[in-house]
Amino acid sequence: VVVDEIAGQYEDSYEDVDKHLMDYFTFKAVRTVLAQLYEMNPSQYIWFYNFVGNNKPQDSKVFIRLLVKERQELAERVMVTRLHLFGKWVKKYSHENMYNAISDQNLELLRERLIQTVKLPSD
Amino acid sequence: VVVDEIAGQYEDSYEDVDKHLMDYFTFKAVRTVLAQLYEMNPSQYIWFYNFVGNNKPQDSKVFIRLLVKERQELAERVMVTRLHLFGKWVKKYSHENMYNAISDQNLELLRERLIQTVKLPSD
Repeated sequence: VVVDEIAGQYEDSYEDVDKHLMDYFTFKAVRTVLAQLYEMNPSQYIWFYNFVGNNKPQDSKVFIRLLVKERQELAERVMVTRLHLFGKWVKKYSHENMYNAISDQNLELLRERLIQTVKLPSD
Repeated sequence: VVVDEIAGQYEDSYEDVDKHLMDYFTFKAVRTVLAQLYEMNPSQYIWFYNFVGNNKPQDSKVFIRLLVKERQELAERVMVTRLHLFGKWVKKYSHENMYNAISDQNLELLRERLIQTVKLPSD
């Protein structure tokens, strides 16, 4: 079954990337809200910290749906924060820099390998 | 220690998002190469499938560094593929669509919750 699933994935769709990005900003928002609560509201921090531990924010929609039921004000705060963080990231991010970063890492890894395989002449 | 780490994260940096994006495209490239090998080269497919199982491609740099040592031609293929997939995604992706997708999901989750909490008058 695993084999079939992998063979069927020809990666002509990019919806998974977009979902992944949204999930990541939700995770980042959760961390940000946790950090704020730690400073400002220790008892809510402890509650939320435990909630995050019990309900991993990997699928952001499922995670927020659960949180909304338990503490709506915290869920709203996470939702506002993920949109805000995304907006801030957009201003800094550049496709060109990202393309160069991938390309540079590719070259760096090949260079590392080359150095490892080259035998220096013994003196 | 965990508490300290979280409290220190004020999310003013976005390097983590960029790293996450690169890791995700590496993971996507691995899946793509696996799908191609499954069709074209079953014995290499089995080898790579096991390698991926034993070395989870979560930190892409560590993963490729290990792969380069074992099978350089496969590592090169993954590296070329992740750059290629990223280039294709850039052409489809729009910050505005992504912003709207997050905003729409926020509203959808609040709407869901509203419907659940509204008590319909019994007849």
